[in-house]
Amino acid sequence: MRCEVVAIGTELLLGQITDTNSSWIGEQLALAGIDSLYQTKVGDNLDRIVETLELALSRSDAVVCCGGLGPTQDDLTREALAVVTGAPLVADEAMEEHIIGLFSGRGRPMPANNLRQAERPEGAAFIEQMPGTAPGLVCPLRRPGADGGTRELVLYAVPGVPWEMREMVLGTVIPDLQRRAGITSVIRSRTLRTWGESESGLAERLAGRIDHLDGQGNPTIAFLASGIEGLKVRLTAKAPTEVEADALLAAEEAEVRALLGELVFGVDDDTMESVVLDLLRSSGLTLAAAESLTGGMVGSRLCDVPGASDVFRGGVVSYASAVKHEVLEVPDGPVVTTDAAAAMALGVRRLLGADVGIAATGVAGPEEQEGRPVGTVCLAVVSDPPGGDGPVVDTVETRLPGGRRQVREFTVISLLGLLRRHLLARSS
Amino acid sequence: MRCEVVAIGTELLLGQITDTNSSWIGEQLALAGIDSLYQTKVGDNLDRIVETLELALSRSDAVVCCGGLGPTQDDLTREALAVVTGAPLVADEAMEEHIIGLFSGRGRPMPANNLRQAERPEGAAFIEQMPGTAPGLVCPLRRPGADGGTRELVLYAVPGVPWEMREMVLGTVIPDLQRRAGITSVIRSRTLRTWGESESGLAERLAGRIDHLDGQGNPTIAFLASGIEGLKVRLTAKAPTEVEADALLAAEEAEVRALLGELVFGVDDDTMESVVLDLLRSSGLTLAAAESLTGGMVGSRLCDVPGASDVFRGGVVSYASAVKHEVLEVPDGPVVTTDAAAAMALGVRRLLGADVGIAATGVAGPEEQEGRPVGTVCLAVVSDPPGGDGPVVDTVETRLPGGRRQVREFTVISLLGLLRRHLLARSS
Repeated sequence: MRCEVVAIGTELLLGQITDTNSSWIGEQLALAGIDSLYQTKVGDNLDRIVETLELALSRSDAVVCCGGLGPTQDDLTREALAVVTGAPLVADEAMEEHIIGLFSGRGRPMPANNLRQAERPEGAAFIEQMPGTAPGLVCPLRRPGADGGTRELVLYAVPGVPWEMREMVLGTVIPDLQRRAGITSVIRSRTLRTWGESESGLAERLAGRIDHLDGQGNPTIAFLASGIEGLKVRLTAKAPTEVEADALLAAEEAEVRALLGELVFGVDDDTMESVVLDLLRSSGLTLAAAESLTGGMVGSRLCDVPGASDVFRGGVVSYASAVKHEVLEVPDGPVVTTDAAAAMALGVRRLLGADVGIAATGVAGPEEQEGRPVGTVCLAVVSDPPGGDGPVVDTVETRLPGGRRQVREFTVISLLGLLRRHLLARSS
Repeated sequence: MRCEVVAIGTELLLGQITDTNSSWIGEQLALAGIDSLYQTKVGDNLDRIVETLELALSRSDAVVCCGGLGPTQDDLTREALAVVTGAPLVADEAMEEHIIGLFSGRGRPMPANNLRQAERPEGAAFIEQMPGTAPGLVCPLRRPGADGGTRELVLYAVPGVPWEMREMVLGTVIPDLQRRAGITSVIRSRTLRTWGESESGLAERLAGRIDHLDGQGNPTIAFLASGIEGLKVRLTAKAPTEVEADALLAAEEAEVRALLGELVFGVDDDTMESVVLDLLRSSGLTLAAAESLTGGMVGSRLCDVPGASDVFRGGVVSYASAVKHEVLEVPDGPVVTTDAAAAMALGVRRLLGADVGIAATGVAGPEEQEGRPVGTVCLAVVSDPPGGDGPVVDTVETRLPGGRRQVREFTVISLLGLLRRHLLARSS
């Protein structure tokens, strides 16, 4: 089973919008065991859309068209599907009513153009999921095969709006493709999020496991370096049923976790931010952050997580050295040191009345500072252990690679990673 | 003249990497007056690469291949060009020496594989720019035309590494295409960065100007909404020489600026952050920021600009209301008000000893706060005017659209935009 992706829209060719949908669909197809050998972008031109779809159907069994389903005259995907399937466009009354209802429910007048979206090529069906106002389409068609037989083909059309597209692809396109391909097996994947070891270091730790899996081919392990998001280890398993696939994944996850230990900070959509906020919340602790080179990025990322406010009190951005000394009471002297980081963490904890203080100071570049090279970063975490008699301070000095932006981003995840280890040690 | 873009790499189809190169090349082609009607992604498979290039050459005059120029066995672009042009791959001695020199200059051993990169199809030339270790290629070829004549075609190959690709496309590919197309005119563009007016509002202000330009077709005006980067107005002019094109642009810029006034905060690579830092620097003023819903994003973006440290002292992230009251001395009461924003700006200015204080407080969602709906944002800027007898405080209450992330991002540029207007008013 081969499926191509055709992204439709002149703005994609002109570079006004970057086509990220095709990449995402390509990933879902790969995960579902369906080959995708070509992906094409074409503008809002009926002849060229039709020509592109015909070419795709000549070499693949299915095509996902993305975009061109809006209500304007520029939106030509419906017309192109009608041409390719040889069926006239018909107005679907039930869909017309549904669209009219959507607008009246929001108390907005419906532009007459929007009824164009209720048209479908005769014989085509609407995609069940419809999170926006643009319906998606499934258009089965038949073509003569080279062997004199009949090729059963299918065209899907989904909107270019990413969240609408994703819901339709996951809800209808992928399951329908798998059914047509006779893929009765289920493919499931799980991503272990790691931090604290390089890609080659991870590969070394997992070498025995990878060799073992290479022999049997299922499950599989893949790595993906994702900058400030850490390093991802993706496990993929295939089985006749979801339950069996999940069992394979769970068994493999246990093997990998045994080899990686505390390097694994989360699973799938977990982020280092959400993980440390959850750890703090479950311990009933509040947090304050003192930031120098990151300039507020640690706080900003923590606040990306809805509900951060019950744990994160705030912080001080002590970009100028004077602010470190005056506001955070860091003793006079150099500020790119673990001592300065510890004093910042203690200072911000005291000033904001938080249970836990974290701090980062360092050299983001472009120039060195206090004779320390670009990439030098000092981190600190402080908290009072339960029943202890004074604050415990963990500090780290490290040297991060890359330019200004990369150093600052790695500082954020490094500091949050240190906080995580501190909290784990505290509670064990 | 038509030019297609072919992005080569299995990782692009699998969605492991999003192809942003094609979009960027598409934009450069459009700007240079060259049509690009199709863009294709294809995997690391020789037959399919060749087939894709043949199709592209059948309907276009030129193709830019992006990726597949590395030293490994997976990198097949050179082989594909040899097949399509019908010329054997030959080792280029001068390039071999150059590559060997690159490695020895960096004191690193050269893997033998890297010499594959010194191969080119006979008759092809290397691209002059070579910022990395992968040389680019220009391969002219001829094919019989439909009219019995000869079609003069050209294939370019550039690496997939964005900064290497960009230098080659701007330095060689675009000028070579323009020469082949007989485009003797020069096309130049300038982007005016604006904030404070919607896209339709800008279009209304510029309607007369757009009508006027539509009549003559040169220069042209286009809009691009760019979220936290503001709204861009791009002017493009065509002329026989650079000097004349620049003169056209300068004249049009003056017309547009007369209509938009202070909405224009910068040009081309200027950002709102760099603009306000420059304004502060030229006035000898330092800045401190108090942030609530943005959680540090204002400070983080200011620190993205190298050299921010001479102006930006830092700030306080007062995410919890208690931090606003205790650390910034905001009077008890509701905190989503312009009074609270003003108190935050005064408080952070005092605490950090800065000349100018800015503050943002508001409701990022997902839930409303103090009975105020999601998107409600209060901003404040405070400074002592020269020779005045007390601080001047500017405040704004606004309602921003979108979800949590969008509200926070628009808050950042709105606050910096208010700071900019405050500084302009102060110095006038």
